[in-house]
Amino acid sequence: MSEAREIREQTGRLGVLMPGMGAVATTLVAGVELVKKGLAQPVGSLAELGTIRLGKRTEDRVPKIKDFVPLAKTDELVFGGWDAFPDDAYDAATVAGVLEKEHLNAVRDELKEVRPFPAVFDPAYVARIDATHKKEYTSLREAAEQVREDIRSFKSENGLDSAVMVNCASTEAYAQPQKAHFDPDAFEAALDRSDPSISPAMVYAYAAIMEDVPYANGAPSLAADIPALVDLANDRGVPVAGKDFKTGQTLMKTMVAPGLKARMLGLAGWYSTNILGNRDGEVLDDEQSLKSKEVSKLSVLEHILQPEKNPELYGDISHVVKINYYPPRGDAKEGWDNIDIFGWLGYPMQIKINFLARDSILAAPIVLDLALFMDLAQRAGMGGIQEWLSFYFKSPMTAPGLYPEHDLFIQQMKLKNTLRAIKGEDLITHLGLDYYE
Amino acid sequence: MSEAREIREQTGRLGVLMPGMGAVATTLVAGVELVKKGLAQPVGSLAELGTIRLGKRTEDRVPKIKDFVPLAKTDELVFGGWDAFPDDAYDAATVAGVLEKEHLNAVRDELKEVRPFPAVFDPAYVARIDATHKKEYTSLREAAEQVREDIRSFKSENGLDSAVMVNCASTEAYAQPQKAHFDPDAFEAALDRSDPSISPAMVYAYAAIMEDVPYANGAPSLAADIPALVDLANDRGVPVAGKDFKTGQTLMKTMVAPGLKARMLGLAGWYSTNILGNRDGEVLDDEQSLKSKEVSKLSVLEHILQPEKNPELYGDISHVVKINYYPPRGDAKEGWDNIDIFGWLGYPMQIKINFLARDSILAAPIVLDLALFMDLAQRAGMGGIQEWLSFYFKSPMTAPGLYPEHDLFIQQMKLKNTLRAIKGEDLITHLGLDYYE
Amino acid sequence: MSEAREIREQTGRLGVLMPGMGAVATTLVAGVELVKKGLAQPVGSLAELGTIRLGKRTEDRVPKIKDFVPLAKTDELVFGGWDAFPDDAYDAATVAGVLEKEHLNAVRDELKEVRPFPAVFDPAYVARIDATHKKEYTSLREAAEQVREDIRSFKSENGLDSAVMVNCASTEAYAQPQKAHFDPDAFEAALDRSDPSISPAMVYAYAAIMEDVPYANGAPSLAADIPALVDLANDRGVPVAGKDFKTGQTLMKTMVAPGLKARMLGLAGWYSTNILGNRDGEVLDDEQSLKSKEVSKLSVLEHILQPEKNPELYGDISHVVKINYYPPRGDAKEGWDNIDIFGWLGYPMQIKINFLARDSILAAPIVLDLALFMDLAQRAGMGGIQEWLSFYFKSPMTAPGLYPEHDLFIQQMKLKNTLRAIKGEDLITHLGLDYYE
Amino acid sequence: MSEAREIREQTGRLGVLMPGMGAVATTLVAGVELVKKGLAQPVGSLAELGTIRLGKRTEDRVPKIKDFVPLAKTDELVFGGWDAFPDDAYDAATVAGVLEKEHLNAVRDELKEVRPFPAVFDPAYVARIDATHKKEYTSLREAAEQVREDIRSFKSENGLDSAVMVNCASTEAYAQPQKAHFDPDAFEAALDRSDPSISPAMVYAYAAIMEDVPYANGAPSLAADIPALVDLANDRGVPVAGKDFKTGQTLMKTMVAPGLKARMLGLAGWYSTNILGNRDGEVLDDEQSLKSKEVSKLSVLEHILQPEKNPELYGDISHVVKINYYPPRGDAKEGWDNIDIFGWLGYPMQIKINFLARDSILAAPIVLDLALFMDLAQRAGMGGIQEWLSFYFKSPMTAPGLYPEHDLFIQQMKLKNTLRAIKGEDLITHLGLDYYE
Repeated sequence: MSEAREIREQTGRLGVLMPGMGAVATTLVAGVELVKKGLAQPVGSLAELGTIRLGKRTEDRVPKIKDFVPLAKTDELVFGGWDAFPDDAYDAATVAGVLEKEHLNAVRDELKEVRPFPAVFDPAYVARIDATHKKEYTSLREAAEQVREDIRSFKSENGLDSAVMVNCASTEAYAQPQKAHFDPDAFEAALDRSDPSISPAMVYAYAAIMEDVPYANGAPSLAADIPALVDLANDRGVPVAGKDFKTGQTLMKTMVAPGLKARMLGLAGWYSTNILGNRDGEVLDDEQSLKSKEVSKLSVLEHILQPEKNPELYGDISHVVKINYYPPRGDAKEGWDNIDIFGWLGYPMQIKINFLARDSILAAPIVLDLALFMDLAQRAGMGGIQEWLSFYFKSPMTAPGLYPEHDLFIQQMKLKNTLRAIKGEDLITHLGLDYYE
Repeated sequence: MSEAREIREQTGRLGVLMPGMGAVATTLVAGVELVKKGLAQPVGSLAELGTIRLGKRTEDRVPKIKDFVPLAKTDELVFGGWDAFPDDAYDAATVAGVLEKEHLNAVRDELKEVRPFPAVFDPAYVARIDATHKKEYTSLREAAEQVREDIRSFKSENGLDSAVMVNCASTEAYAQPQKAHFDPDAFEAALDRSDPSISPAMVYAYAAIMEDVPYANGAPSLAADIPALVDLANDRGVPVAGKDFKTGQTLMKTMVAPGLKARMLGLAGWYSTNILGNRDGEVLDDEQSLKSKEVSKLSVLEHILQPEKNPELYGDISHVVKINYYPPRGDAKEGWDNIDIFGWLGYPMQIKINFLARDSILAAPIVLDLALFMDLAQRAGMGGIQEWLSFYFKSPMTAPGLYPEHDLFIQQMKLKNTLRAIKGEDLITHLGLDYYE
Repeated sequence: MSEAREIREQTGRLGVLMPGMGAVATTLVAGVELVKKGLAQPVGSLAELGTIRLGKRTEDRVPKIKDFVPLAKTDELVFGGWDAFPDDAYDAATVAGVLEKEHLNAVRDELKEVRPFPAVFDPAYVARIDATHKKEYTSLREAAEQVREDIRSFKSENGLDSAVMVNCASTEAYAQPQKAHFDPDAFEAALDRSDPSISPAMVYAYAAIMEDVPYANGAPSLAADIPALVDLANDRGVPVAGKDFKTGQTLMKTMVAPGLKARMLGLAGWYSTNILGNRDGEVLDDEQSLKSKEVSKLSVLEHILQPEKNPELYGDISHVVKINYYPPRGDAKEGWDNIDIFGWLGYPMQIKINFLARDSILAAPIVLDLALFMDLAQRAGMGGIQEWLSFYFKSPMTAPGLYPEHDLFIQQMKLKNTLRAIKGEDLITHLGLDYYE
Repeated sequence: MSEAREIREQTGRLGVLMPGMGAVATTLVAGVELVKKGLAQPVGSLAELGTIRLGKRTEDRVPKIKDFVPLAKTDELVFGGWDAFPDDAYDAATVAGVLEKEHLNAVRDELKEVRPFPAVFDPAYVARIDATHKKEYTSLREAAEQVREDIRSFKSENGLDSAVMVNCASTEAYAQPQKAHFDPDAFEAALDRSDPSISPAMVYAYAAIMEDVPYANGAPSLAADIPALVDLANDRGVPVAGKDFKTGQTLMKTMVAPGLKARMLGLAGWYSTNILGNRDGEVLDDEQSLKSKEVSKLSVLEHILQPEKNPELYGDISHVVKINYYPPRGDAKEGWDNIDIFGWLGYPMQIKINFLARDSILAAPIVLDLALFMDLAQRAGMGGIQEWLSFYFKSPMTAPGLYPEHDLFIQQMKLKNTLRAIKGEDLITHLGLDYYE
């Protein structure tokens, strides 16, 4: 249908830089190293394992995505990042307790070599962590320059042409866009005067964009999702995407809510509680960080259900989201959802979902996919907001005036049809009347 | 994009004929009568409450489906059917115990008037029911003629131009296509000699098609899903669709499995158990009827997950489906699913879903939607298998050589894009790159 | 074994006075009236339906409890109380929405006659209620006198010799014993000066004791559980018992925790969350009231598991209790418990309990039992704390220096062996070696 | 109160002989060896970790059970047994997959030394196992003699004075007592003629009793629970106990059902389903073995709830128990229970319990406790049925004419008061009135 885009070839290895080298980041790094050695499968990675249907159902043309679009190879990935603790990836992974010793030891050498740069850290944004490995600077401008210098030195030391940044850091305290966030000039001035509305996550995002490094944000923190940085990304043609990795409970919610909506089943209430016991849980034990996360989780239902279109079904929903720190759970976070629906004539029914999940196991392949797809976007000349990657986020960034798509299946359609469009293949509509006529 | 189809206008009222006037059928009839009086909402009906997005997200063109395509009005529906018990719809609904007395009494008069014709009944196909209201005939040919005569007299008595048939009867014993099912001539001959491979559900389907009445099948029984009847439907231009209403557990399964697949999460096992206490549960307490239902429920995962494309994720699944008769549950059937998934590097996680559902509450709006959409299809000149209505079925009928789509969201896309195509509107692809370029 | 106690005969009818005539109280009153008419069963009442084994297993002497000890008859109960709203019991029950219209209408006349006295109300103790029906007084002394006068007039108007009081009011803000609570004299002085540490629940308790009316407390509010009022009750020989009806989640907890302990299974954590949507839920949406309830719920595990005896099993438990206001649930409160246990060699296992309960349905028979047993205790000459009724409470009152028993089965043993002791029957020990020797 | 019994001193080590050396037996052996080395705790063992309250609550006399009665020490246990496969305990434990490699390797040498004798095996009783390590014999008499010879040689080789036998073998096909089971003479004659009604489990039980070795039965197979063997055990003064270890779902059932009964909550239905994936699950995939297990599980509720005493509460219960083989679960069996209760005036409520259990982890400490307590019983001169050990069994053996106690808390009381009686301590009744008078 459409014409294929021109895609610049990937040359050399690809750097993956992660602010926040805790459970998620180290689970990714260890996993990729295990995959390189053939010791494990990158389960959960659409980029690595996914297929894409091309043409009609009867054609049976279903290549792997990685054979369809020219992604960087996992063998070519090099990892680095920043953390508020000095541990190398082996030690950090051991503390995180996500992977079995057996797995970690099989890639011990590779993990020992991954050491974080000191973090840009501000206790006003992350209260529950006592950083021991942080940058010294007299202004946020200086902090940003240090991060940019880290990026350049990481690329040159590893002989890289390109890199992407994926934010894997803890959730920052809740914040809403401020004056300093409205345009690039205001932002630059705010950096100079160390304006308190500039958070560490914004500093990283700014540094990435200035270095032409695509930036994806796995936390609910604002980071690149402010007009100033979106404008900058558009101007420089740098892909940005976010916010907040969609794992666990919200992932389930964006499967089930679209299904209820599809069938026009009403919703009286949705009570979600979450227990988790890792460092994330500890950070969220702080009220301000918790608020960031809860706001991110609450927005989902409204956009999927569109109460304004069906007030009789979705106009009066009790949506409650709770997150509790519960140490026995460790990294294996668990969600319990109670969903009060109603059907024909308003008769009530209930759905209960208990998800015994693992936070980092669900998040790691998202980091991988984002690294590969953001890099592809850059080489395909697609700068600015990458809405087609909404699939991976609890709070997808969109162009101003455009409502976000939260329905996992619309997001998947958007992602796959974007890949088809990039390669000039027919878009899939699932119409199929022609099989019968 | 495409050109709009010509749609014949609906004239007069529309008959809805249901073999099996038990819990589901009477819940539908009572509900529609309540809706007519403004006493309840037809929740769960896409045709009545659903909206359809047209054009771009920024256009905000989102009409109700019933304002977009010319469906029959609920006010114009007239109900009839067949049952193995002589109760009128009021008495049958009282026995079924689905709706509250208050609701039933508000439409008592209307329900008292709906009385079933005697059923075509064969204990070899439904073992647990002791029919007291059945047709007398010396051959299946005669039985078919009686049903055709019932249809004609129902139409003339009610002054109807058109009618649709939706099978709401109990599940028949498991059967696979036999010689007599292969072509129309063989089928006609088998009717004449009362071949035991012709089940009552087939007799109804045959009669409907011969009377140019669209036929949809809510049970897993073969009915119209045999080459003989599909050919006949194609020749006569009569829409047919089936099989087995997708409610409760399978509905959830076709929401969640596509979500796991979308995210490339592996599946080690899926254990589903169901408890239900109504007449359906009693019928399924018979081993042969149970097999029909279990086969219908088991096929779902394989088609959604496509193990041949991702053997490392879906090549070795323990899929267990159990159904148990448990009287305390009444019509309020309940499912418990245990889903063993695995993520990054193969690490296991679990999802448990407990669905406190109501069988007839979920099924009734499906009957309504099928009646309205099947009638629309006929008026739009679409004969034969209506794959675009797969959305409503556990075992969707498809053209030979075409795999069925079980993914609820693909089914929804297919349904809505078919409506768009019928009206000549652009199909939705969710691409959206143009918002950014 | 022991000698039977002398029990004064019950003469005339028995008054049941309830501060707080909302969901629980009206469910009790409606239920007793339905039972009187033979329209329902007093399910959940040990006093009415329970049996008691006497002698050896082989004797088969198992009378009903009410045939074994001389309890007041349900036919002889007369209900009254106080509330912050002026509704009669019919209107209040309708608002509460616990019982079906059909049930309420069958005893409409009886319920219309039950009208509350104005409440002693203090917004400092119950923040979320806007009282419209409250006493006017210039000192707490005056308030207490008004309540005493209410009791006397209720008795004389109904021609009663005796009455009991059971507190069914909302949870008060959290409080700990203060100076004014230490002895009767200090308490009397505090009443005179309207000391803010005297809560409305204490005023009722004081009035009851002074009127020789046994007092039981269904809320976690301190009420009679302060030295001043216990001393007074001892002096006057008036039975008192409390606190906080054991229903729903805590009831389950005191079944399961003793079972884990019996089997020496370790406990790493117990996460309990509760959703409820009635007035109780609304009151608990206030932080101070919530604290009272949470403290009451948290104490249970420690006393059952005795961590000091088995630190290796119970020395490090994460016990989290959350209560959330969730309107769709109405009176039908729901609990979800996640229990992390460990067994042989420390291997972890999990138990999840989802209790779809009904608050007032579980509480109403407790009020009935307490009324009957407290009255029995008074007639049997048992004044002061009734520890044998711990069975009904989340936070049982005990003599100073005595740890409370929370294990439901020890509590049951205690209750039944007390009844046996009252009547001079052998106590049950379940030894049973003699059957074999 | 009573006089203390005379208890013969334990001399030398104690042999623990187990027919069936699969998952449960090897988990026990490995665990005891780990405990001996101080590497793990015998969690779940009442004998090892439990305490017992003596005297009044205020005395605080709460010794460990093992310090209160003279049990054999875990250090003095020597393990042996029989199996249908020749693997030593290390290899068998590896196949079973219950314990982590790390744990198994720490006691590898000890486990390698535990090698089973060939089993008495009859495919008519265990259909799904293909035995490769079985005795050759021409009559069941000969088989019994071989087992007795095994016992004697095990004792002499290990220099043991005493031993106990605990049946850890797979469930045999369902059987009811036959003529040959009625008295010792009939049984002896049946052995001689190899009567097919004598199962392998009976052969082991007979051999144990004849060798004065106490016999406990962890499977639902009849074994010692026939009049012939009970008479023999009584005559010879050998303790016997059984049947069917109470773990997982039935353990939960005997915690929760007594709680519902205590509170006089009605029961409409209890639906239990079980998924398990180990060899036990495979054996139970055979219909006849399944029946043994299901019969054993079904009897529990009736005895606890006593429907004849409260027909209005327990007279019409739908009790459904299902067991399904589901390989992904491995040894970690899982139960889901749906409990339909009703309260005040008959209003329905529901409890759902999901138990993520581990079969062998729950069973192993039971084997240990039974070995220690059965040996104690023998030394205390208590022969025949040990009803006080009902605590450990799904189907407790009792004297003829005596109903079994299934309530876990009555069983615990029975066990602990038996220990108190053995030592001449006051029995606990939980009366406690004296604290107040």
